[in-house]
Amino acid sequence: MEAVEERRFLNPRVHRSYRAVGVDVGGTKIACAIVSFEGLQPPVLSYHKEVPTEAALGGEHVMGTIIGVVRACLDEARVQEGDSFMDGVFGIGVGTAGCPDPHDGSIASANDIMPGWTGMPVAARLRYAFGLPASVMGDVQAHALGEARWGAARGVSSCLLVAPGTGLGGALVIAGRVLRGAHGIAGHIGHTLHPAARDMECQCGRFAHIESIASGQGIGALYQGVSAADPSFDEARGGAWVSAQAQAGDTRALQVLHDAGFALGESIASWVNILDPELVILAGSVCRAGAPWREALSAGYQSQALDPVAQTRIVDAALGGEAPLIGAAEDLLDSLELTGL
Amino acid sequence: MEAVEERRFLNPRVHRSYRAVGVDVGGTKIACAIVSFEGLQPPVLSYHKEVPTEAALGGEHVMGTIIGVVRACLDEARVQEGDSFMDGVFGIGVGTAGCPDPHDGSIASANDIMPGWTGMPVAARLRYAFGLPASVMGDVQAHALGEARWGAARGVSSCLLVAPGTGLGGALVIAGRVLRGAHGIAGHIGHTLHPAARDMECQCGRFAHIESIASGQGIGALYQGVSAADPSFDEARGGAWVSAQAQAGDTRALQVLHDAGFALGESIASWVNILDPELVILAGSVCRAGAPWREALSAGYQSQALDPVAQTRIVDAALGGEAPLIGAAEDLLDSLELTGL
Repeated sequence: MEAVEERRFLNPRVHRSYRAVGVDVGGTKIACAIVSFEGLQPPVLSYHKEVPTEAALGGEHVMGTIIGVVRACLDEARVQEGDSFMDGVFGIGVGTAGCPDPHDGSIASANDIMPGWTGMPVAARLRYAFGLPASVMGDVQAHALGEARWGAARGVSSCLLVAPGTGLGGALVIAGRVLRGAHGIAGHIGHTLHPAARDMECQCGRFAHIESIASGQGIGALYQGVSAADPSFDEARGGAWVSAQAQAGDTRALQVLHDAGFALGESIASWVNILDPELVILAGSVCRAGAPWREALSAGYQSQALDPVAQTRIVDAALGGEAPLIGAAEDLLDSLELTGL
Repeated sequence: MEAVEERRFLNPRVHRSYRAVGVDVGGTKIACAIVSFEGLQPPVLSYHKEVPTEAALGGEHVMGTIIGVVRACLDEARVQEGDSFMDGVFGIGVGTAGCPDPHDGSIASANDIMPGWTGMPVAARLRYAFGLPASVMGDVQAHALGEARWGAARGVSSCLLVAPGTGLGGALVIAGRVLRGAHGIAGHIGHTLHPAARDMECQCGRFAHIESIASGQGIGALYQGVSAADPSFDEARGGAWVSAQAQAGDTRALQVLHDAGFALGESIASWVNILDPELVILAGSVCRAGAPWREALSAGYQSQALDPVAQTRIVDAALGGEAPLIGAAEDLLDSLELTGL
């Protein structure tokens, strides 16, 4: 009897191993892998696959591609390790572009990058196709959960992930759980006000959003002297292009990177003043913009952070592209109450 | 044996009654009452006391006043109900101006309104003085917890309290718990960026904060055409004065109330875009500014809210001045793990 009582309070992870399929659905590519958890060892990814999303072909096509890549991943594992491999697979966890409904794992809304993705019952379709449990969260939310449990925020009680890439996404993890929000949109930090964006139209159609300055598209638009929503905006001259220009000595490009970094730092301080996480994690392609951008970000942060959070650490993400796959798999285990959290 | 197993999963509240002293420490007054919880009935306040804070006399004076008013409250209850009254009192819960350390119940930081309050070990002093458990949280956090458990957000899973008064405070409640933050400052919504405040100095010394527009002081400053941090700012012409002017037909005052309401609505949308609470609750003296302010707030909200949160309800607080006392008492019960949450 005593042994039974004791086991109830143990973390089930320490004494068991789990596998889940992790899927990362982005606007450009879909990645998939078997994520294996063995006790408290860092998870191991295997049978990694990556295919183009071909988002323009519509939601049904994307859903079919997801099912195809998950099947390819499981089939390869079964061939390599035998049919008994499936006994250890607990389900399929998905992190996806667009905003999943936190209650039923369908896509509550998605922007123009994923036409026809809104309304897709992703979790239900996967359950039907594979007869396995499935969970769905936002791609940035999955990224943050991966970093929180196994990456830059391991052992930390709360963190804010800030991800300036093509757009500007974010996610907050509190006590090991992603804040999903009542409609699943929690973490949309890109769509918050910034004075320097006052007269700029955001991709969402509203004005004065930090995404218009701090995202890769925003950086490109700043350089071109137009808004990213402006028809004259040249997408080929986005953040990466400006960054290359700056490294080649273009002082205008350097100034733009400085301004984008400083503004993002100011906004991060605004969010930290509200959320007070233990740690801020930077991820996303814009983070490769180099030292001038990063130094401006720190200066912007210091100019706006309240005194008690002036020392809050801002660190780089640690897991790269594996983070969303790990986070999505973690979310699946959470949904089955297997994580012991 | 079976009966024991069952009881473990029952909400302890349903079958027991609890009392706690609730204390609300503001810059102007200190309120205190016995808060009685009886099963799932709404809490009842009794032996209510209110005394001036006299904050300018320093932190030690304020601490002495708190101890005095708690003692008066308990003494009166004991005289009325007999010594056995104390058996049902589980401790003292405090909501206070300034920013309490979430770990030890001392004051991590406080602004100039409470000189010498920083560093005060409020929880420890109360435990020593009364031999009872004590808990300490921010006053706006206590307000939000009271409204979340028993007021406007009863039965709702998450809410954001927005409290424009002299300043502009806020607090987020998720799954029945206040987000305290790593340094206890979570909810400092007043110190987030707003484009219309671009050139205004905030009370905190930084620039472009929504508090400079949307607080009572900010509204007064807008009317006077100066910043609230400006030495020429006349405090007597604050939010209440502007509101009275507007009701007397002063069109400039009406315009200022409109601008303040619209800007606050835009900022609320920014916060909802990040936090996605089920409900937003408005509290604080500025909420008495009337229909033009409230309508402008709604319009500002609609102009900035992302589509999935456009319908998020914004409602008035329901409990008035009782909310912080109830919230502080709830926090004390939480700290003793008596709430069943």
